[in-house]
Amino acid sequence: MTTATSAERRAARRQRRTVSPFAHFPFGHIQNHFPPLEVITPEQIEQLHEASRHILEEIGITFMDAEVLDLWEKAGARVDHSRQHVWFDRGMVMELVAKAPASFRWRARNRDKDRIIGGNYINFVPHGGVIFAQDMDNGRRPGTLEDYYNFLKLAQINPLMHFSGDQLVVPHDIRVSYRHLHRSYGAITLSDKAYMEAPHGRIIAGDAVQMANIVFGTDVTKLPEPVLGGIINSSSPLRYDDRMLGGMVTYGRAGQVLIITPFVLAGAMSPITIASAVAQQNAEALAGIALVQLLRPGSPVLYGGFTSNIDMKSGAPAFGTPEGAWAMAIGAQLARHYKLPYRGSGSLNTSKIPDAQASYETMWTTWPAVMAHTNFIMHATGWLDGGLTVSYEKVIIDTESLAMFQSFLAGLKINQDTLALDMIAAVPPGGHHFGTPHTQERYATEFHPIFLGDRQNFENWQMSGSLDTAQRANRIWKQLLEEFEAPPLDAAVEQALREFVQRRERELVGVELYT
Amino acid sequence: MTTATSAERRAARRQRRTVSPFAHFPFGHIQNHFPPLEVITPEQIEQLHEASRHILEEIGITFMDAEVLDLWEKAGARVDHSRQHVWFDRGMVMELVAKAPASFRWRARNRDKDRIIGGNYINFVPHGGVIFAQDMDNGRRPGTLEDYYNFLKLAQINPLMHFSGDQLVVPHDIRVSYRHLHRSYGAITLSDKAYMEAPHGRIIAGDAVQMANIVFGTDVTKLPEPVLGGIINSSSPLRYDDRMLGGMVTYGRAGQVLIITPFVLAGAMSPITIASAVAQQNAEALAGIALVQLLRPGSPVLYGGFTSNIDMKSGAPAFGTPEGAWAMAIGAQLARHYKLPYRGSGSLNTSKIPDAQASYETMWTTWPAVMAHTNFIMHATGWLDGGLTVSYEKVIIDTESLAMFQSFLAGLKINQDTLALDMIAAVPPGGHHFGTPHTQERYATEFHPIFLGDRQNFENWQMSGSLDTAQRANRIWKQLLEEFEAPPLDAAVEQALREFVQRRERELVGVELYT
Repeated sequence: MTTATSAERRAARRQRRTVSPFAHFPFGHIQNHFPPLEVITPEQIEQLHEASRHILEEIGITFMDAEVLDLWEKAGARVDHSRQHVWFDRGMVMELVAKAPASFRWRARNRDKDRIIGGNYINFVPHGGVIFAQDMDNGRRPGTLEDYYNFLKLAQINPLMHFSGDQLVVPHDIRVSYRHLHRSYGAITLSDKAYMEAPHGRIIAGDAVQMANIVFGTDVTKLPEPVLGGIINSSSPLRYDDRMLGGMVTYGRAGQVLIITPFVLAGAMSPITIASAVAQQNAEALAGIALVQLLRPGSPVLYGGFTSNIDMKSGAPAFGTPEGAWAMAIGAQLARHYKLPYRGSGSLNTSKIPDAQASYETMWTTWPAVMAHTNFIMHATGWLDGGLTVSYEKVIIDTESLAMFQSFLAGLKINQDTLALDMIAAVPPGGHHFGTPHTQERYATEFHPIFLGDRQNFENWQMSGSLDTAQRANRIWKQLLEEFEAPPLDAAVEQALREFVQRRERELVGVELYT
Repeated sequence: MTTATSAERRAARRQRRTVSPFAHFPFGHIQNHFPPLEVITPEQIEQLHEASRHILEEIGITFMDAEVLDLWEKAGARVDHSRQHVWFDRGMVMELVAKAPASFRWRARNRDKDRIIGGNYINFVPHGGVIFAQDMDNGRRPGTLEDYYNFLKLAQINPLMHFSGDQLVVPHDIRVSYRHLHRSYGAITLSDKAYMEAPHGRIIAGDAVQMANIVFGTDVTKLPEPVLGGIINSSSPLRYDDRMLGGMVTYGRAGQVLIITPFVLAGAMSPITIASAVAQQNAEALAGIALVQLLRPGSPVLYGGFTSNIDMKSGAPAFGTPEGAWAMAIGAQLARHYKLPYRGSGSLNTSKIPDAQASYETMWTTWPAVMAHTNFIMHATGWLDGGLTVSYEKVIIDTESLAMFQSFLAGLKINQDTLALDMIAAVPPGGHHFGTPHTQERYATEFHPIFLGDRQNFENWQMSGSLDTAQRANRIWKQLLEEFEAPPLDAAVEQALREFVQRRERELVGVELYT
């Protein structure tokens, strides 16, 4: 028996890849040319805007960070330092918000994978903020760094996933104080897509910028495009905490992307009515976006919506609901109103396993998100159990729909060739078109290719093991991990990153991160 | 032990019903006030219209019925009797189509359950044309009359289902020659909703009209509204067969509803390109609608779309695809262009079990159908395996989404009360709204109530048996059948119907039905 060389193994992997589940899908830009779903009228948008202005002016927002309070005071806002509370002049917030770009390019280390954020561009982004990993072989368990890196690999190999993702699962086997280093190291070395790192406090965000400097070989804060970004959640109602503000200050000054996303569950973090929840979301989002523009005018920022409701029976968050669909679409309408790119969500659901409920609730989030022209669809795949868990199988299941959206949004051509009136004339009434030259030329490429759905007849499906969707998905993610090859990265860059991680690991032992 | 009287049993059932899964949903009219999803431009609609006119004028349509050929000839079309083929003048078809009503009322025997068909009204209609019944206890088997009546009961008890349905499953235990009598008898006696009977030939359609006369106590052909209707499929390409035409002639002259639905699978019954498939669909639909107007001007008719594609790998039909979504939305755009009500579909999918694939493909049909303002959504629940099978569990699973659409389309109110700015002011930053009077007044009614989805935390879900969606649905359909009570029907009417069925059973033995 001879041992295969690494070149031979690569060649074998490459050959297998010709039948890879994702082989037929391009990595490209996706635009939604259909008119956006709008669920409220322009007059209602004005009502919400007025309510938000009232909140900003009369009720105010708490900012738990002394530096930020000083900034607001200097900018002319009314500040109560002892209460850490800020009230805004009528025009002030809107003047600042107007400085934010309506769209921008997010640079990837592989420039072919840069993303455009804004307009009618749709980007799919992995799940984030998750505690547990789950698969059909091992069930649910606290995530590890191995899980984290597996999800990075799956995001990299998935052409429907436009970012490598962040906070994919908590790597419980790595110390809190330097988890961020290993997240970023993985995102950079296992993927060449645009990447993210959670700006949770000044230390983490500062490290992330330094790691980006190493990868991009320059001071990224001087580049014309951001290379890094992350989610900021207000801790609703009406509050930004110290951790989030430290990250905002650091990324904001560095010109990196801040995705300002109030996390509002109506009935808990806001009044129970969705109108009130989105008015509050809007006030919180505008205040956060204004802060970013105060830090560095023109810095890239997204208006984020993550408003759903509480199930008043169980007290648990509800996802994949009519209320969530309204909030998602209204958020998009508000973002368009303010000429800001919009962040929504995809695979939100509350099922504990990747079954029917998981899928229909996911579709109840993804369909309104795509139809509303959501530019940045977080959690596009993988969620289970209200986002506590990511399922390997569901990552695959949800990707099937993302691929369908890519084809659906590409639209269809109507011309002499596709109308094929000569073929309609050539086939007799009641005849069939299987064998016509028009069909034969196109049969392999005309239709969207699915990779997961089973279209066999019942008997063949039975004979092939009566597998359900999750069982088929289980095979696919394993095949994909098997096929994975890390994208090329300069060895010196990789070493510099590794050294940075090692040095910072030592320095951060015992340090309070969130300051 | 005493035996409960029937009144006591009814009372007990009524009491249980207060916690019935569907208890919270009204039976009402659903309107989609959001702008319709439009996937092609007005110029592209014109291109399709022109292509259809070319087909009607130059290529023509086959009508396999001598009476219909004579009608066309008298109306001025060019007819080749030996080939049973008809070519239409440019203006002729459109003049006839213009006589069809843009919307109409479909009368139910319980007038509170009349339906409006047209405009932005959305109606959900059960599955039809199905061979097998399937449930988790007994698996898949050929349908029986018991299954048929069970599905009628489930449609009646389901407030999201607006019709009782037709051809719910083939009742294999009843002779072909009088199955229609038992279908209609069940639809009339087990439901008081608007009902349908497949107009498959003159005999079946004639019997259906006579049974309607008995129920409505009058000659229904003279009523201002139709009381009966059914699906007509062209046998594409470009052909209406004798069975369908016999039904069209009978229902058309009787002023009953004809839902003209070309059944086009691109690559098989039309050229492979969706542009061509919908152009052909349009020509076939317009020819059928024109025929109805020739039979009785102003008779209610729907433009039906049922265009999807063939999976070129397996040769099987594909459902829940981007191509199907385009075709559904384009069909709606064409119907609006011609000022006709539109019929589309809901739960189309190819899965063999009610799993994730079944649900995401179903959502890939239902979402575009609802967003496109489809007035009559056939197969709104229950499909599996390309429509060969109806699943008891999936009827329940799909109903969860129909209920969500009802809530979603009701829209949300934005006013001083729902904005609740006083409550936002009253709760401190980072506080919670659980206990405010605004929340307390509304917590039981504010949010859409789900009946199937599981929102428990993981541990409680495990302790309650780790049931998946289909297992929970299994319990629900059994509970609903248990709760079912037939709606009141005059005893004399019921007896007259029974006598009609018995007489016609005898008369129809050995008769060739489809003439």
